[in-house]
Amino acid sequence: MPQLRKDPVTKRWVIIVHENIRGPGDFRMVPEIVKSGTCPFCPGNEALTPAEVMSYREPNTTPNQSGWRVRVVPNRYPALQIEGDLDRTGLGLYDMMNGIGAHEVIIETPDHEIIGEIYDRQQMLKIVNAYVDRYRDLKRDRRFRYILLFKNKGAAAGASLDHPHSQLIATPIIPKRVMEEVEGARQYYYYKERCVFCDIIRQELSSGTRIIHETEHFVAFAPFASRFPFETWIAPKDHKASFGDIEESEIEGLADTLRETLGRLIKTLNHPPFNYIIHTSPCDELCAEYYHWHIEIMPRLTKVAGFEWGSGFYVNPTPPEQAAAFLLKSNFL
Amino acid sequence: MPQLRKDPVTKRWVIIVHENIRGPGDFRMVPEIVKSGTCPFCPGNEALTPAEVMSYREPNTTPNQSGWRVRVVPNRYPALQIEGDLDRTGLGLYDMMNGIGAHEVIIETPDHEIIGEIYDRQQMLKIVNAYVDRYRDLKRDRRFRYILLFKNKGAAAGASLDHPHSQLIATPIIPKRVMEEVEGARQYYYYKERCVFCDIIRQELSSGTRIIHETEHFVAFAPFASRFPFETWIAPKDHKASFGDIEESEIEGLADTLRETLGRLIKTLNHPPFNYIIHTSPCDELCAEYYHWHIEIMPRLTKVAGFEWGSGFYVNPTPPEQAAAFLLKSNFL
Repeated sequence: MPQLRKDPVTKRWVIIVHENIRGPGDFRMVPEIVKSGTCPFCPGNEALTPAEVMSYREPNTTPNQSGWRVRVVPNRYPALQIEGDLDRTGLGLYDMMNGIGAHEVIIETPDHEIIGEIYDRQQMLKIVNAYVDRYRDLKRDRRFRYILLFKNKGAAAGASLDHPHSQLIATPIIPKRVMEEVEGARQYYYYKERCVFCDIIRQELSSGTRIIHETEHFVAFAPFASRFPFETWIAPKDHKASFGDIEESEIEGLADTLRETLGRLIKTLNHPPFNYIIHTSPCDELCAEYYHWHIEIMPRLTKVAGFEWGSGFYVNPTPPEQAAAFLLKSNFL
Repeated sequence: MPQLRKDPVTKRWVIIVHENIRGPGDFRMVPEIVKSGTCPFCPGNEALTPAEVMSYREPNTTPNQSGWRVRVVPNRYPALQIEGDLDRTGLGLYDMMNGIGAHEVIIETPDHEIIGEIYDRQQMLKIVNAYVDRYRDLKRDRRFRYILLFKNKGAAAGASLDHPHSQLIATPIIPKRVMEEVEGARQYYYYKERCVFCDIIRQELSSGTRIIHETEHFVAFAPFASRFPFETWIAPKDHKASFGDIEESEIEGLADTLRETLGRLIKTLNHPPFNYIIHTSPCDELCAEYYHWHIEIMPRLTKVAGFEWGSGFYVNPTPPEQAAAFLLKSNFL
């Protein structure tokens, strides 16, 4: 059973894995995606993953066999385990609990070789629908306080398999970074009586210098204080705290905005490694008035070094205004 | 002039560089240390760096010529600039100021090829003395609120030059990560009337399961909630908030502890990339009662991926008790 341990100074939680412990010889110095062997995410290899949680399939095909378009399975090496009790306990001044949670993989396409993961509109819509479906389903489990949807693309971004996939981790505590955002948004709201994200979106749309893409319901922009070159956020224009509350009529717009934005990043930066993360409110939604869900996309072009780790300060050699200009120029599709 | 910009939600600051802007083609997908050409940190090439701030030298040698043992120079590509005013300003809801600060390089040895940066005792003592001297000198500049000393070793840890060196960045604001530690320590102190670091050290020494090295004044241990495999902290046993207040009689003990700990990590992990960072109190020292300086050493063996970025949660596949056991077994020197 993985263990959750809390740092008593900063209150950050860490998942300590107690199975398949890695010793000094088990780390590759050069990150590499395992290419050899059989891909467990390819059609025909469904038996190599745990049984699927859900899938969107061709008519008349059977679960855990080929014929799917998007397939969601439990992670074979989960960071957190779905079965069990939290069993909160202390050890002197330290706090810990069992690593209970969900860890799922969203296999985005049957096509292992899809070029640059630039999907057609229908496929991207299926992927976003899978995010929404899994989010809403897991939110019903009262043990979970937060549901994190994210994608790692490329070895430098932490991916260990090549086949296009995203992940979902549901956690029994609200992660520290989420609490920071919620608390910052709360303070702004109590001072201004306005959502800080709504204010940001309004100012970005009005200045226009960092906008990358705009649709009826969504806007993609390079944030004013971008930590990384070509960092890009996508946010709904209307105030909404929880990703799970997206309207059916907005899902297609989100899929189009995500596809357009990722397409521009992939073209402009020549298939960079990247992460994206859906930032949404904690499951309790106590922050519904002042939190505002959004997606943060981070191309992994620079290394995070000692200065960034020690300070939380980032040095960004590409001003976001320039990044937006480069992305706007890109000849997407 | 670099620009400091603040994220209005999380209040993190970012340094946006406006000179030598990097565009889409300027990022290497495979990190690499530049090996070709002349090393600006090697003896004989002193003219390739800005004029030295200080050096420890052989008798009868001249500044900015060879004969030095440790040499400190301004960074040729500083993240922050030493000359100018902060010029705080707003832009709608955004806040920013000029990027004023100091950015220095501590060249640790004249020996470009030193194996694994395992120094002899005398050289390590000189390096630690240089840290102390530069820290104390820069602390006198009232524009600086924080002084961060750190080392990046290896391309995966963010180093761009091979020649062994550390860095120092003095910032006009207190970095967010520092404030988190200070605030966490403050809350603990007001609840317990004790320093949280003193309590951690006491408990670690008493349990013994995560201790890596102990001397009269210092202890090295694997923290209970280690974020990374083989993460190691070094702390003074007696309560002291500021690194600059280290006693002359303790400096040799610190050099020995750092040398022993790095030596064990380098041997056990076969010359890993790593960062270390000296965590010290902000310059104002208002937190003298409850903050406790220490060094955090982080081997860079795993990739930080979307989950960690989005949550601040870390998944660590090597329990710190096992890491300490591996390090204790290592046959250091």
